[in-house]
Amino acid sequence: MKLLILNGVNLNMTGKREPGVYGVQTLDEINEEIRKFCLARGAECEFFQSNLEGEICTAIQQTDADGIVLNAGAFTHYSYAIRDAIASVHTPVVEVHMSNVHAREEFRHHSVISEVCRGTVLGFGKNSYLLAVESFLL
Amino acid sequence: MKLLILNGVNLNMTGKREPGVYGVQTLDEINEEIRKFCLARGAECEFFQSNLEGEICTAIQQTDADGIVLNAGAFTHYSYAIRDAIASVHTPVVEVHMSNVHAREEFRHHSVISEVCRGTVLGFGKNSYLLAVESFLL
Amino acid sequence: MKLLILNGVNLNMTGKREPGVYGVQTLDEINEEIRKFCLARGAECEFFQSNLEGEICTAIQQTDADGIVLNAGAFTHYSYAIRDAIASVHTPVVEVHMSNVHAREEFRHHSVISEVCRGTVLGFGKNSYLLAVESFLL
Amino acid sequence: MKLLILNGVNLNMTGKREPGVYGVQTLDEINEEIRKFCLARGAECEFFQSNLEGEICTAIQQTDADGIVLNAGAFTHYSYAIRDAIASVHTPVVEVHMSNVHAREEFRHHSVISEVCRGTVLGFGKNSYLLAVESFLL
Amino acid sequence: MKLLILNGVNLNMTGKREPGVYGVQTLDEINEEIRKFCLARGAECEFFQSNLEGEICTAIQQTDADGIVLNAGAFTHYSYAIRDAIASVHTPVVEVHMSNVHAREEFRHHSVISEVCRGTVLGFGKNSYLLAVESFLL
Amino acid sequence: MKLLILNGVNLNMTGKREPGVYGVQTLDEINEEIRKFCLARGAECEFFQSNLEGEICTAIQQTDADGIVLNAGAFTHYSYAIRDAIASVHTPVVEVHMSNVHAREEFRHHSVISEVCRGTVLGFGKNSYLLAVESFLL
Amino acid sequence: MKLLILNGVNLNMTGKREPGVYGVQTLDEINEEIRKFCLARGAECEFFQSNLEGEICTAIQQTDADGIVLNAGAFTHYSYAIRDAIASVHTPVVEVHMSNVHAREEFRHHSVISEVCRGTVLGFGKNSYLLAVESFLL
Amino acid sequence: MKLLILNGVNLNMTGKREPGVYGVQTLDEINEEIRKFCLARGAECEFFQSNLEGEICTAIQQTDADGIVLNAGAFTHYSYAIRDAIASVHTPVVEVHMSNVHAREEFRHHSVISEVCRGTVLGFGKNSYLLAVESFLL
Amino acid sequence: MKLLILNGVNLNMTGKREPGVYGVQTLDEINEEIRKFCLARGAECEFFQSNLEGEICTAIQQTDADGIVLNAGAFTHYSYAIRDAIASVHTPVVEVHMSNVHAREEFRHHSVISEVCRGTVLGFGKNSYLLAVESFLL
Amino acid sequence: MKLLILNGVNLNMTGKREPGVYGVQTLDEINEEIRKFCLARGAECEFFQSNLEGEICTAIQQTDADGIVLNAGAFTHYSYAIRDAIASVHTPVVEVHMSNVHAREEFRHHSVISEVCRGTVLGFGKNSYLLAVESFLL
Amino acid sequence: MKLLILNGVNLNMTGKREPGVYGVQTLDEINEEIRKFCLARGAECEFFQSNLEGEICTAIQQTDADGIVLNAGAFTHYSYAIRDAIASVHTPVVEVHMSNVHAREEFRHHSVISEVCRGTVLGFGKNSYLLAVESFLL
Amino acid sequence: MKLLILNGVNLNMTGKREPGVYGVQTLDEINEEIRKFCLARGAECEFFQSNLEGEICTAIQQTDADGIVLNAGAFTHYSYAIRDAIASVHTPVVEVHMSNVHAREEFRHHSVISEVCRGTVLGFGKNSYLLAVESFLL
Repeated sequence: MKLLILNGVNLNMTGKREPGVYGVQTLDEINEEIRKFCLARGAECEFFQSNLEGEICTAIQQTDADGIVLNAGAFTHYSYAIRDAIASVHTPVVEVHMSNVHAREEFRHHSVISEVCRGTVLGFGKNSYLLAVESFLL
Repeated sequence: MKLLILNGVNLNMTGKREPGVYGVQTLDEINEEIRKFCLARGAECEFFQSNLEGEICTAIQQTDADGIVLNAGAFTHYSYAIRDAIASVHTPVVEVHMSNVHAREEFRHHSVISEVCRGTVLGFGKNSYLLAVESFLL
Repeated sequence: MKLLILNGVNLNMTGKREPGVYGVQTLDEINEEIRKFCLARGAECEFFQSNLEGEICTAIQQTDADGIVLNAGAFTHYSYAIRDAIASVHTPVVEVHMSNVHAREEFRHHSVISEVCRGTVLGFGKNSYLLAVESFLL
Repeated sequence: MKLLILNGVNLNMTGKREPGVYGVQTLDEINEEIRKFCLARGAECEFFQSNLEGEICTAIQQTDADGIVLNAGAFTHYSYAIRDAIASVHTPVVEVHMSNVHAREEFRHHSVISEVCRGTVLGFGKNSYLLAVESFLL
Repeated sequence: MKLLILNGVNLNMTGKREPGVYGVQTLDEINEEIRKFCLARGAECEFFQSNLEGEICTAIQQTDADGIVLNAGAFTHYSYAIRDAIASVHTPVVEVHMSNVHAREEFRHHSVISEVCRGTVLGFGKNSYLLAVESFLL
Repeated sequence: MKLLILNGVNLNMTGKREPGVYGVQTLDEINEEIRKFCLARGAECEFFQSNLEGEICTAIQQTDADGIVLNAGAFTHYSYAIRDAIASVHTPVVEVHMSNVHAREEFRHHSVISEVCRGTVLGFGKNSYLLAVESFLL
Repeated sequence: MKLLILNGVNLNMTGKREPGVYGVQTLDEINEEIRKFCLARGAECEFFQSNLEGEICTAIQQTDADGIVLNAGAFTHYSYAIRDAIASVHTPVVEVHMSNVHAREEFRHHSVISEVCRGTVLGFGKNSYLLAVESFLL
Repeated sequence: MKLLILNGVNLNMTGKREPGVYGVQTLDEINEEIRKFCLARGAECEFFQSNLEGEICTAIQQTDADGIVLNAGAFTHYSYAIRDAIASVHTPVVEVHMSNVHAREEFRHHSVISEVCRGTVLGFGKNSYLLAVESFLL
Repeated sequence: MKLLILNGVNLNMTGKREPGVYGVQTLDEINEEIRKFCLARGAECEFFQSNLEGEICTAIQQTDADGIVLNAGAFTHYSYAIRDAIASVHTPVVEVHMSNVHAREEFRHHSVISEVCRGTVLGFGKNSYLLAVESFLL
Repeated sequence: MKLLILNGVNLNMTGKREPGVYGVQTLDEINEEIRKFCLARGAECEFFQSNLEGEICTAIQQTDADGIVLNAGAFTHYSYAIRDAIASVHTPVVEVHMSNVHAREEFRHHSVISEVCRGTVLGFGKNSYLLAVESFLL
Repeated sequence: MKLLILNGVNLNMTGKREPGVYGVQTLDEINEEIRKFCLARGAECEFFQSNLEGEICTAIQQTDADGIVLNAGAFTHYSYAIRDAIASVHTPVVEVHMSNVHAREEFRHHSVISEVCRGTVLGFGKNSYLLAVESFLL
Repeated sequence: MKLLILNGVNLNMTGKREPGVYGVQTLDEINEEIRKFCLARGAECEFFQSNLEGEICTAIQQTDADGIVLNAGAFTHYSYAIRDAIASVHTPVVEVHMSNVHAREEFRHHSVISEVCRGTVLGFGKNSYLLAVESFLL
């Protein structure tokens, strides 16, 4: 099984902003943990991050992975483009957020992509990624 | 570590209604799987289900578990009582739904308890419970 | 054919409050009329009333009646728990209100259970129950 | 007792459209059943159908019946004219729908005439008419 | 192929009101152009205009045309009666507006009939009719 | 100067319904008073009432009066058709209501025709008509 | 009969701002016309204008007039204080606007005082005042 | 005079949760203070707390007290059942909150029971109960 | 302890308007009762009433009292100015209403000042003032 | 005449996703049909598709075509950037959708670009493009 | 060039309330800085502050300044009276706020005067005034 | 001090579209003025414009400037991505608009980035940029 770990806008800043919310590890360090977690379970993974909404759509369209773990960042709240990209492929997508978005600003309470994802994991910091990976392996 | 697996209203009907949405296993069978999953990870667990909102509140107030995995069923969408019960204790609570509630009726898109839970796992059928358990053990 | 006549919160006060709206007969007296009405049509009926939302759910789950005549009282307007209980069984449910709820306070204009009931009869005082019974016998 | 069975816009198409929702009987056949039902109970009835909102209003204003059974069709959802016509006469009106309008499109959930009717019967197919007739005779 | 060109309320005033919005040709002159356009493409057409909502419904119910080109005028924004008439027949309907209704008053932005029409053509003046006709012939 | 006194749906019931709101005079008696009021001021007037929305539109389109005094009744609150008819002619229209619509049900607080009328007079019983007539003569 | 002509905030600028909307006459000139109009009908009138909401309230509370003609200006749209002042006295109040407020900005479409006034006259320029005066004398 | 001091869901946790909001006294300690306060004023009081909404309704229905001091906790914001229970008895009810609910989360700003209570006292910590008691004795 | 009893717009009409709602005592008589109530408890009080919103703000800014009992009247519902005045001083303010505002018109259900007051007492007629005074002395 | 056929995000997936909605032809095949349709009418056309919103804006800014046929895909529903790009050029734009967006999810009912386009053609599958092209040539 | 620096309700408390938001300088000290800033640029300025909405209106109507720098305080959010005063004069007005109102309470996000002001400067503490002055001099 | 002047989507069209709103200078000409303005005050500045939302985010993340002057164009109204980018850095950002967005279309009244910016300057044409620069230098 191969998984695509896909991160959207501003997630390249992880570990550099609001450590109280996002922890102190950088995205590279988190990705390294995910890689080891997958390895230990006999799964393969690859990583992509972009600040460009269209590149996230293209990555979803073109991946040959068996599943996508997607943290769309702020795109979560308005990108019907990413929603349609998810709906246009057969690859299952699991939505992930590090923070508990429901305990933050009002606009973060609504996700336009949840409806077309298989499931959602949110609020567990970097472990949200690991649990999403696990969801493909159980 | 001891976990309380807490199920709200109508979840005693699991495996008996809408198998397309909730699967064909009964709550007892699912609980048995959770018990094994915990055991394999060196954790202990206990189970409680009630159709009475107030009993769910009391269970949250009185448990001596280290964490609660809560599927509140339909109470999720209006029970400020359960929300306040969660807020009144120090035990962390993880919210769980078997189905992807965002792909169902409009009223299921809003949870009044998410804000006071540590995190949420939804959409993975019975595996939602297992992933929530895992979130306490990672 | 066996019918369950199910009454929710505060309906034990019928005949004791607002006689202009609910008439002067008590629930027991109304139930007696329903029993005779059923008898005359060769149907059987049983009765249950509770102020506890969860007990209404359990009654719906456990009945062996062929149909339910349900006056959920104030639960009508917010109990997604009762709604899910109705959806989780095959027994058809007919929603009943004695008063014309649309001619009363704004919050009484919306029912969260109508969508999952077979039909609705409202506005005819105690006769609402009789017409609902009749709907199973026509 | 004389009753006016009043049908609004498009109900002349009954039995010809969406049989899953409205059944396969035509309006004439349903009216014939209503006539027999009334006859058996010693009541008289007459029938009127129109696609013109204003003619429905006039029918309400001019009838000498003791009660009106009204299926206003789509007018139900916006015709304040029919609402005012009902309010302007002393003849009691019972609102009827064959389908469970609350289980259909959003716009069908609101009736602008319910408030001024005596009561409502909905969801029982052609039997909705019979139950409405019965409501005048109980 | 036979098409019904159906015009609703106030469209008999075309060419007489707000020439900046609707052009200077009368409805008769536009109809004449449509007739020639059809003729050139081997199609037949007939015309009906009414200020009475119910007559529009009846025309939709009774036509033997293969398709309907419908400019419902102001009825577009509230006539659930016309919507239901369209839904009650098998004849496909194409919605047409001469002006770009989205660039006009707020209430013109919403059409209650779009959902049950095959498609919509708007903003091209009298050419909106011709393009709608063309849509049946491509 | 010639004025058209135009009355919409249910206003033929004036003097027969809710005398507390509309007074005890019939529409004919009120029209007679208006005629005298006009005569005394050297103006001419004619009268039209219809329960059919489309006939009100046609009357507005075809009148040769210098001004229209319009009590549209319940059409006031949803007839964009009448609104467009008013906008399609050069004849100025004054909107009239006998009762103070703002002190009645919520749905009566909004008029879809006010914006395209010259002005509005409401709340003075039959005198609303006289003041509207006066507005053309001052 | 004595009438109080009461003008609220910014109406002292009449004739000085937006002549297209308010005309070119100053408030003093308009008041002079009103005075003559009253005189010709055997009525007495007095005038008060203030930019201070509280002074408008006090004027309403303290007047010994038989009726009040009130143009509250922008206070119309939010001054529940003036509303309560009107409700606290027995003197009937007629609401007046020179422009057709329904054809202007959205916030001008709602009046918080209409409900407690006897009636409303709007859209006739300075004649709105004269018609309001007339309403007391008919 | 006898008063019922009635506390709803989670109020058994008082003094144990959020001491900044609710103080450090337990419900028993507060009740003891209320008892002394009543005693000093020659009034009698009794106490009931429940996490079950239906038991609160039953307590309201069955009490023989002369007045009820009710802190419904989270039920305040959605329990139309408790609202109807209050409306169904003649015993006056005074609504009490220890915290200033208007300075907390949005959902706490709305009470569905205020309308049917005699009055409300909120924001004074445990003194809210004392002032509510006082309101019956002044 | 010195308290300022502060009354806003139209409260000078107390005892003169709607006696069913506000009682028959004038503000002066009520103030006299408050004075005696304070005296009996060893507290001092002073009184101010104004119809001018700005004067209420200034009174709040300039008082040297230890607490303010404020009945802002209709200002309650829209005066963010008074809200800011309260927030700009350290003197605690208790909001008071004589009537149960939640049982009256919709616009009276919302207070823009509650959030910045210490607490609220409403529904007890003139006793609302006494209870608010008491809240400072308990 | 030269036309730019401009396709937004995910439209490169046409013919690969939801064939029931979008048909089985790929975008290249559809473009080939458009090219032939143009050729037959003596018009020239060029094609551009991008998943990047900004590239759609730039394409609109820089084209030398005489008209643009734009299917903005999901950008239709939130891209004020594309809206402003359209408003910033003189080239007329016709909005196109293959499916009847009004018969799909709620969020697809609103287009933020319609107001600044010349017109809209929707619901005719690939023929929507052809009709839009035709609109420039009639 | 002469400028009027106009401050609304509660701004006389500046430097005395919430120093974290408004700084520690009093309005007099800030005005002194503005005076020097103007002087250095060859401009003249005068100052007015009032807690009375009507006096702010009058100041706007009567000033002979070439421009107005207006901090309306809480009036910003509801005073259509001030809005109309601004619209009734030719003197350009620049709206100023010391704090970033968009980062504070929801009700501060909306200004009813922005639409009729030339521009807005907000968030720079006392420098907001200086930048607004500068806007007249660039 | 070094400032980054950052311009979003379509601002490369400045001076080419709607000169009544945006003036006739191109962005390059405006930038040249800003450069001189900075130079005269001893500040340094650099410039970046992009139609790609993601590039604006990256520019905010990567700049080494001491402050950012940001005109996000249409992104202002929906880009939570840019909002998060601003929140993820320590560099202060001042929001700028050339036109008075509050006097334009409804959708331009709301900015999703204002809350995380230091302040806002809008309505002064190109001078909005200069005043924003000045805000860093005062």
